[in-house]
Amino acid sequence: MDVVEKNEQVCIVNALPMEEGERERFIDLAQGAQQWFITPDQEGLETLPKDWHERVNIVLGNLPPADIAKCSNLQWLQTESAGVNAYQKPGVLGPQVKLTGASGAYGKAVSEHMFAMMWALMKHLPEYRDLQDRKQWKPLGQTLTPSESTVLVLGTGDIGSHFAQLAHNVGAHTVGVRRNPERSAPSIDDMHSFEDLDQLLPQADVVALALPAAADTHYLMNEQRLQAMKERAILINAGRGDAVDCAALARVLASGHLWGVGLDVSDPEPLPADHPLWAQDRCLITPHVAGGASLPSSHAKVIDIVESNLERFLAGKDLINRVQ
Amino acid sequence: MDVVEKNEQVCIVNALPMEEGERERFIDLAQGAQQWFITPDQEGLETLPKDWHERVNIVLGNLPPADIAKCSNLQWLQTESAGVNAYQKPGVLGPQVKLTGASGAYGKAVSEHMFAMMWALMKHLPEYRDLQDRKQWKPLGQTLTPSESTVLVLGTGDIGSHFAQLAHNVGAHTVGVRRNPERSAPSIDDMHSFEDLDQLLPQADVVALALPAAADTHYLMNEQRLQAMKERAILINAGRGDAVDCAALARVLASGHLWGVGLDVSDPEPLPADHPLWAQDRCLITPHVAGGASLPSSHAKVIDIVESNLERFLAGKDLINRVQ
Repeated sequence: MDVVEKNEQVCIVNALPMEEGERERFIDLAQGAQQWFITPDQEGLETLPKDWHERVNIVLGNLPPADIAKCSNLQWLQTESAGVNAYQKPGVLGPQVKLTGASGAYGKAVSEHMFAMMWALMKHLPEYRDLQDRKQWKPLGQTLTPSESTVLVLGTGDIGSHFAQLAHNVGAHTVGVRRNPERSAPSIDDMHSFEDLDQLLPQADVVALALPAAADTHYLMNEQRLQAMKERAILINAGRGDAVDCAALARVLASGHLWGVGLDVSDPEPLPADHPLWAQDRCLITPHVAGGASLPSSHAKVIDIVESNLERFLAGKDLINRVQ
Repeated sequence: MDVVEKNEQVCIVNALPMEEGERERFIDLAQGAQQWFITPDQEGLETLPKDWHERVNIVLGNLPPADIAKCSNLQWLQTESAGVNAYQKPGVLGPQVKLTGASGAYGKAVSEHMFAMMWALMKHLPEYRDLQDRKQWKPLGQTLTPSESTVLVLGTGDIGSHFAQLAHNVGAHTVGVRRNPERSAPSIDDMHSFEDLDQLLPQADVVALALPAAADTHYLMNEQRLQAMKERAILINAGRGDAVDCAALARVLASGHLWGVGLDVSDPEPLPADHPLWAQDRCLITPHVAGGASLPSSHAKVIDIVESNLERFLAGKDLINRVQ
């Protein structure tokens, strides 16, 4: 049986956002396998064969976990997101299903968003925007600089180390916290374990969170730790929303503590309209957009990872970015 | 006649913003000269001797030009601002009066403000702030990155070269424009003269203006040059407001051209409440605050310059930062 003949047994649902040229490359790569293309918002789902849940062996892209759970012959799920925890919940994937993410594609985009938030807060830009909306020409006084400041990065993987590099390049002293402090990371001057967190927080001018979802980081930044930060410190979170207790954060900001906060993720998410954080002037909120495909280079990296894995899967080789 | 006796003939009005310790240093430095301290908002002016306009020889700080014009025995004016053009208008200073500015004190503060504006615009932060005010959780799509972008810096003095360095440190290719392109500047990859401006504008992803006030830079960025910029380019101005035709800029933005604009200075200034720029979402406006003493390091540098000059003046030596 030649490759194409063998692949004819394989069914792929490809739900990645992509351009025409990218689609053609995926058709080539599939080498005879059936491939149904649908858009990420599931447009085209109705044109799939009725029994697609039974027939599909590979899903490329972030289909809803409920749909994935129905795929009784699934062998492999490749997400376009770096995080995969929605698919690791009980009942979604059978134990035989391979799961790969797109870790590595978003480090630059997410860290740049965090960096932009840090600078904007240091220079009062969100508050100047509020004044602009009221057509008011009114100085708001002193600003901060990252140069010679201490930037504490919690989670020093792809995103955290990219962020540390940006901060380092504008003169900051960078301190990292990771599970295994023996592992160094580029542009982190001092590496510590989570055990040192409570000692490090009161020394940091900026605390940047780039943590993956995990049970032991839930509400890591609770009210006590938020209060332990310097009065004029900045907090940035673009990792997982539940690493910060957002209700406590609203109280801490209302008390006048902290210079400013930048959140691209929140808990709950989306932030409900009646959440007190919306009204905190010193909190800048963006709607979980730091990653996504907000930079063309992120999209290109996702496509690279998935193309490489599709080739590997069909050739029976080990997958990259394997989570389970 | 010893130094103190000689200095007793000298009268100083010191209107610099300062701390108690700094005031004591100025008292020491004056070596017996009379020194009247007032706050920059002229508080304490009523406690000056009635004939102070006749008696004062030295003014340190930015008193209103109308007051300076009345000082018939003024020998030296030291401003706390980098720009001195308000004092160079006819009728303000006699031809014998020495004029020194605080050039060099604001490069870091102003360039950092420009850099923060650039990043905020690239990541849609002003528009996300608008959504936040309406408690809306809504992605705005693709963003830009400075890495591998071309940043064109007009005016490569203290501010422009600091800005170029920041842009360079995050991966931008920097092109400078200055009167004498034979003079290099730190972190500028390619230096050009103003003659090349019209060729350079269509190639730049970011155009950053850090020009001093001068007749030949009035409306340098006119409607034609704004239209010549890339459709998705960013314009930043923190030099002099009249380097950009702000009425033309409002039209250009309304037409959909340009990714975003950051203005810390405007023409006219302050921007009147009915100016069409206020309502352009893609224009971020701050009220001429990039310099000032918005960074503690700027204030410290101003004090350094003035202290050094006061010593020099009383010792009969040449002043630094001399403008006329």
